[in-house]
Amino acid sequence: MGDTLLPAIGTEILIPACSLVAIAFALLQWLIVSRVKLSPGGLDSAGANSGSGKNGYAEYLIEEEDGLNDHSVVLKCADIQNAIAEGATSFLFTEYRYVGIFMVAFAALIFLFLGSVEGFGTSSQPCKYDPTKLCKPALATAIFSTISFMLGAVTSVVSGFLGMKIATYANARTTLEARKGVGKAFIIAFRSGAVMGFLLAANGLLVLYITINLFKLYYGDDWGGLFESITGYGLGGSSMALFGRVGGGIYTKAADVGADLVGKVIADNVGDNVGDIAGMGSDLFGSYAESTCAALVVASISSFGINHEFTAMLYPLIVSSVGILVCLITTLFATDFFEIKDVKEIEPALKRQLIISTILMTVGVAIVSWIALPSSFTIFNFGTQKVVKNWQVALCVAVGLWAGLIIGFVTEYYTSNAYSPVQDVADSCRTGAATNVIFGLALGYKSVIIPIFAIAVGIYVSFSFAAMYGIAMAALGMLSTIATGLAIDAYGPISDNAGGIAEMAGMSHRIRERTDALDAAGNTTAAIGKGFAIGSAALVSLALFGAYVSRAGISTVDVLSPKVFIGLLVGAMLPYWFSAMTMKSVGSAALKMVEEVRRQFNTIPGLMEGTAKPDYATCVKISTDASIKEMIPPGALVMLTPLIVGILFGVETLSGVLAGSLVSGVQIAISASNTGGAWDNAKKYIEAGASEHARTLGPKGSDPHKAAVIGDTIGDPLKDTSGPSLNILIKLMAVESLVFARFFATHGGLLFKI
Amino acid sequence: MGDTLLPAIGTEILIPACSLVAIAFALLQWLIVSRVKLSPGGLDSAGANSGSGKNGYAEYLIEEEDGLNDHSVVLKCADIQNAIAEGATSFLFTEYRYVGIFMVAFAALIFLFLGSVEGFGTSSQPCKYDPTKLCKPALATAIFSTISFMLGAVTSVVSGFLGMKIATYANARTTLEARKGVGKAFIIAFRSGAVMGFLLAANGLLVLYITINLFKLYYGDDWGGLFESITGYGLGGSSMALFGRVGGGIYTKAADVGADLVGKVIADNVGDNVGDIAGMGSDLFGSYAESTCAALVVASISSFGINHEFTAMLYPLIVSSVGILVCLITTLFATDFFEIKDVKEIEPALKRQLIISTILMTVGVAIVSWIALPSSFTIFNFGTQKVVKNWQVALCVAVGLWAGLIIGFVTEYYTSNAYSPVQDVADSCRTGAATNVIFGLALGYKSVIIPIFAIAVGIYVSFSFAAMYGIAMAALGMLSTIATGLAIDAYGPISDNAGGIAEMAGMSHRIRERTDALDAAGNTTAAIGKGFAIGSAALVSLALFGAYVSRAGISTVDVLSPKVFIGLLVGAMLPYWFSAMTMKSVGSAALKMVEEVRRQFNTIPGLMEGTAKPDYATCVKISTDASIKEMIPPGALVMLTPLIVGILFGVETLSGVLAGSLVSGVQIAISASNTGGAWDNAKKYIEAGASEHARTLGPKGSDPHKAAVIGDTIGDPLKDTSGPSLNILIKLMAVESLVFARFFATHGGLLFKI
Repeated sequence: MGDTLLPAIGTEILIPACSLVAIAFALLQWLIVSRVKLSPGGLDSAGANSGSGKNGYAEYLIEEEDGLNDHSVVLKCADIQNAIAEGATSFLFTEYRYVGIFMVAFAALIFLFLGSVEGFGTSSQPCKYDPTKLCKPALATAIFSTISFMLGAVTSVVSGFLGMKIATYANARTTLEARKGVGKAFIIAFRSGAVMGFLLAANGLLVLYITINLFKLYYGDDWGGLFESITGYGLGGSSMALFGRVGGGIYTKAADVGADLVGKVIADNVGDNVGDIAGMGSDLFGSYAESTCAALVVASISSFGINHEFTAMLYPLIVSSVGILVCLITTLFATDFFEIKDVKEIEPALKRQLIISTILMTVGVAIVSWIALPSSFTIFNFGTQKVVKNWQVALCVAVGLWAGLIIGFVTEYYTSNAYSPVQDVADSCRTGAATNVIFGLALGYKSVIIPIFAIAVGIYVSFSFAAMYGIAMAALGMLSTIATGLAIDAYGPISDNAGGIAEMAGMSHRIRERTDALDAAGNTTAAIGKGFAIGSAALVSLALFGAYVSRAGISTVDVLSPKVFIGLLVGAMLPYWFSAMTMKSVGSAALKMVEEVRRQFNTIPGLMEGTAKPDYATCVKISTDASIKEMIPPGALVMLTPLIVGILFGVETLSGVLAGSLVSGVQIAISASNTGGAWDNAKKYIEAGASEHARTLGPKGSDPHKAAVIGDTIGDPLKDTSGPSLNILIKLMAVESLVFARFFATHGGLLFKI
Repeated sequence: MGDTLLPAIGTEILIPACSLVAIAFALLQWLIVSRVKLSPGGLDSAGANSGSGKNGYAEYLIEEEDGLNDHSVVLKCADIQNAIAEGATSFLFTEYRYVGIFMVAFAALIFLFLGSVEGFGTSSQPCKYDPTKLCKPALATAIFSTISFMLGAVTSVVSGFLGMKIATYANARTTLEARKGVGKAFIIAFRSGAVMGFLLAANGLLVLYITINLFKLYYGDDWGGLFESITGYGLGGSSMALFGRVGGGIYTKAADVGADLVGKVIADNVGDNVGDIAGMGSDLFGSYAESTCAALVVASISSFGINHEFTAMLYPLIVSSVGILVCLITTLFATDFFEIKDVKEIEPALKRQLIISTILMTVGVAIVSWIALPSSFTIFNFGTQKVVKNWQVALCVAVGLWAGLIIGFVTEYYTSNAYSPVQDVADSCRTGAATNVIFGLALGYKSVIIPIFAIAVGIYVSFSFAAMYGIAMAALGMLSTIATGLAIDAYGPISDNAGGIAEMAGMSHRIRERTDALDAAGNTTAAIGKGFAIGSAALVSLALFGAYVSRAGISTVDVLSPKVFIGLLVGAMLPYWFSAMTMKSVGSAALKMVEEVRRQFNTIPGLMEGTAKPDYATCVKISTDASIKEMIPPGALVMLTPLIVGILFGVETLSGVLAGSLVSGVQIAISASNTGGAWDNAKKYIEAGASEHARTLGPKGSDPHKAAVIGDTIGDPLKDTSGPSLNILIKLMAVESLVFARFFATHGGLLFKI
């Protein structure tokens, strides 16, 4: 036990301590955000009662503009925010109700399937991972896997819901702060993002930590069994994420496509909160849970796993704990150490966050690896042994971390309108929507190149050093700064909403310019966030794939075997099938939305002139109904494919399917996200007219601008529905295969058995 | 030798006889086409002098319309045809000049690399394929590979050039025949397509047959060495096809995108002939050459290869010979047994061609397999032996053949405006270009599903029966009806051109309706042709991949090995990189074209009113310059990747790259082709207004129609440049790897050796 510098008791303290610090920090940020008042007088709409001090209402007068500083604007903002929050809450409750039914059914399936794996794990047989011990019966695996699946699902739901609550609390406050200047508004938006980032990171870490400790009460020294059951946690997290992403994605984009076509509706803003916030929260939580589980499973068959060295075993969780601390310091650079003075400084400030967190984390990883790992240990993988040094593991984590930074930078380059790619796309609007679309698609395809090389190098280096444990740790490395990543991510939709609220509340041109600038940076950061999500998903899936293969008892996945090759081919097709479903869903829902909005313009007198209020409820209902109905087929495709392939074709074909969907899905996901982001910012580039070139394309309403709007609308389902759902597709199929691996190995492959 | 029912002498007669019959048939069709006069009096513009008999000018009067039966229309058509033919010829000569330089350089590379593989093939060592014999020195392999490479390149060039000549000879004749009725015009277009189909099929077969016989003079009984050298033929064919497709594709689409935006230019028609005709001809010739070579290489290490059974060895060529005869009979069903009366009958007639040829060929394959193969033989593959019955090989060919038919039907379903998918896309134009693009992309993604399953089943069945020989024969099965496939394919651009000529010559609405109907069917058949090309390319690449792996001495391609996995990941990215390049090229060239056309409208007085002639030459020059310049980077990417990966990373990573690009490229290629085809036909659906639904969307110039035009323009580079080039990408990388396999195995993997 004494092989690591950090004693077990230190680990037992460190992990919960970091989680609690993060939660405290998140609450502090929330408190600061709540000091922006949403009611003209004293009490704000959320009921907080912190007086009208330094950040209070009186100060608005400093930069206030003619005639806008009246109570009615603030009240209008509060009204709109309430409508958004209500819409989002009601959607999420509806969604969770449907998904809840599915979760219970799937939990039953897990219980049945895993409970039926006979011949393994009965107490009369030695444990596979540790032949000196006897394993618990199969029933235990079934029960504990089911429990951890449910826990993962619930944690994922809570994460998404909390994020949504925070975002809908912050959006109008950001709008109001924009009256004091772009810097103030930025800080509020970023702080709110940080609340979400830190709550989620701490939540995920803490629940996993407690679960491990509770399961240990039953499993005792059978760590193989323990960490086999814990993979259910990842499956639960990602299943929820899938529905959150797909349902939320269809919701937001149905509303957005509709809105861009015939006018802004409230559903668009609701959509951002349920899709980009709740969905993204669940998604990244899923990645985090899965990469930790993958690392733990592989670690349980290492030398320190067999010797039960607690600190070394929990190394993945310690890395995440330190990551939270690093992100905490990083956040201060955005919110307290500097204040932005100009719209041009927004993107650099966000980029600085990425750089600072990566550099600090590199140091952190070095320290953690030094104190929490034995200087040398053995990994057992695919029937071979590999001696690994602690500095090699540190390098694995670092390579993932830096690959993430590279992906982030490349994504920024291709989606920010500060660089030539987006400017070229904007320029192509000169000759119409068609060239805009062609250039945008080409940009997305091109943006895949460097990230793929970065991931490939990451995989090669980390695998060479520490086999599948290295891959899992590289994935965790990319996700170690998840709190900052999520803060940046959440910043985007909050700013987007703030802009929407400013517009609907009829605020001045100057304020809307500020919120637009925040929003444009948000589009870029959203693309960066998706880049991280996809990159980490690729590594996570590979790690899960490795764990699956070793649990299914396969020694090679040979492309030359026809069973594997057809799996590879069909697997590479799945992302297309999935995208076809989700895009068609968005298209159909958008059609309905457009018709509804047109109907309202025709039937509600005074709506066109702005004197009457549109019927938000019906629009929200259309989006809700469409997304609930339409999320089922793609969800079923992803959840059922591993089951069908595993049962009918067996573990080999399934391994081909996993590899195929991984290598093909990553490409579509990256290109779709970046194409969409680029179109959105090309439009914003023309609208903002910040350069000589941009002004020749504008103003709003010009032919090039119209072409840019078409591109933006096409990009919506690409960047917010099909693209970001694809990384869940590849992760989820991998983790599901891992959970059912033994079942497939025992009962699967029916078709080839005939 | 006597193991087959067909004696060697029978084979020696059958193959050249079938080729000569096909050539005679093609010439007969040409003669019939030439009887449509392009000059009002007697002599037609091509100088043929077959009098003005049954098909002569006088008969036009029967269905002639008011005021259009004047000499000037015929002269105008002849003029336009001349301009198109000149443009196409001049472009192809320019292209071939540049590609020629490349070919010589690459031939030198082949010679150097293959000549440098020491330690193998020296006369003091036993032959690897047949340890009982001594191999010829490496120099022989180098020389003969280089020769067969050059031969393949030249045959490919001749095929493409001939196709273009025929198409530019037939287009105006189709226009003129349209005056007599849609049936007559269809027959002329189809006959012209058949000229190309039969000439190409016969040409490919005959050259390969003669080459084998000539090489045999040197190699004698060393069949392993002979068929190793012959793979250069496939490489030469596909290299030319790559440049033909990419260059031609950029050319045609630069012109077409430009044309759709600001008016019709002659370059659009030239483009169809150099891209869809010459490019497609080279492409399918390449597939044919490669699958035959792959089958021959694998067969040379079978029991009949080792025993030198000539007939069994040449079984792949015999299948193609019988395929030609089958296609000959099939063609008569389109041109002589029936005549189309109504525009609605065009698509069924073309579909009938597919069905008839498939059914007849199934019978043909059964007979050929019975007489030309031993009833049972042994295949040596990846170190194992496999006993194969002749009926199993017949099933392999048949499964490829029928998989092709399924792909054809699915493609038709998704791209023809007779079915709901395209009608849904057209309907989505109601809400603008954005929904049109979203629906179109989703349609393309969805259209991938069934073809992939068909290919997967084909692979599984044929591999189970006869390992890699089965895969190669399945590919050849899909290509066995290549003459009909090419005829259908060539029919499309000819009809497209005919419509363009009718428009430019100012022919009546009624005639243009007919040519439009021919053209709409042509869009569908073009998509079907691409489906075939992609499906067969997938099988061919897999067969080549198998041959490569066995020649490189790899026994397994294990996805779990990081070397292979990173190859897989990067390989799956290559089609995106390639597509980004080609699409961006089309976009840039189109931008230039649009500017030029706008310039002409502004500077040439009377052009807008149609009284002045546009400056065709400058437009043609823009397309030419752009395509020559822009075809180099994507061409280099494809040609250099196997060399770089093989030399730096070695044969294992290269095998990953090949598998990755194969499984990823197939999907993009199919979806791009079908998306483009669907958009084109959605536009035509609205324009034709043939149903109640279609009329609510039209007429030409309505908002939905404008949205449809945008979709069509975006689809152009997808369906005619990047999509169909991708199948060459995957084939070419595979055949190149095969040719250099021994070199890489000996000298490659420098980076991992350090």
